[in-house]
Amino acid sequence: MLKRIDHIGIACRDLDATVAFYESTFGLTVVSRETIEDQGVNEAMLMVADAPAGMSYVQLLQPLAPDTPVGRFLERRGEGIHHVGYGVTDIDAALAAIGASGVRLIDARPRHGSMGTSIAFLHPADVGGVLTELVESGRR
Amino acid sequence: MLKRIDHIGIACRDLDATVAFYESTFGLTVVSRETIEDQGVNEAMLMVADAPAGMSYVQLLQPLAPDTPVGRFLERRGEGIHHVGYGVTDIDAALAAIGASGVRLIDARPRHGSMGTSIAFLHPADVGGVLTELVESGRR
Repeated sequence: MLKRIDHIGIACRDLDATVAFYESTFGLTVVSRETIEDQGVNEAMLMVADAPAGMSYVQLLQPLAPDTPVGRFLERRGEGIHHVGYGVTDIDAALAAIGASGVRLIDARPRHGSMGTSIAFLHPADVGGVLTELVESGRR
Repeated sequence: MLKRIDHIGIACRDLDATVAFYESTFGLTVVSRETIEDQGVNEAMLMVADAPAGMSYVQLLQPLAPDTPVGRFLERRGEGIHHVGYGVTDIDAALAAIGASGVRLIDARPRHGSMGTSIAFLHPADVGGVLTELVESGRR
């Protein structure tokens, strides 16, 4: 069902500074920057790998305001890894199978993610404390 | 420098139960189980993808005792994502370059990881709160 680690989502307080750090320290390249209003974040996607199963990214997330999910995460836990996203080929089928197994779905239906993707989050309380995202790539 | 997301490391209290969950819910397969005494963990590696740049895994970690790094993480933050590991082709060169950039190295020299790998950790305080591991695959 899971085809790749699509990305790790990292919460930061200063997106520009964190992007500059990942570029200079690790040689990663920004391939997309977007403001996702309904998630309350400014984000940058940095490319790690390009493989047949699809790309992998470091996703850097700066909250648009303190009263957003990532803003509350920063307040509670500080900067660090926020979630992991796995690539799937059919997100509707994956959500149906995972929901049937008893895992609560934060998103019962996929919504629009960055770069034309369809995404859905699973409830971390049912995934061993891990905020887990499914990602189906768009047809780019 | 970073060639792939080699793995995400997830801290759990019950390795057998968490392995069974990832197998049944996400269809992942265990490819290795090891006790790593010097890291104080029992671990299971579950395969996510097999790509030219190398494999990606979910690494499940159960501490051998409370007074270990993963044991203290569980006490402080509960179950969840503990670290991210990136694949590199030359870990000595990567450590030299990253160290020269001012990031403190937890492991100034590589040590043995699971499955014949050479690994080294970077200090999370210098990587935006992210415990970051470099992994050079063994010659399997």
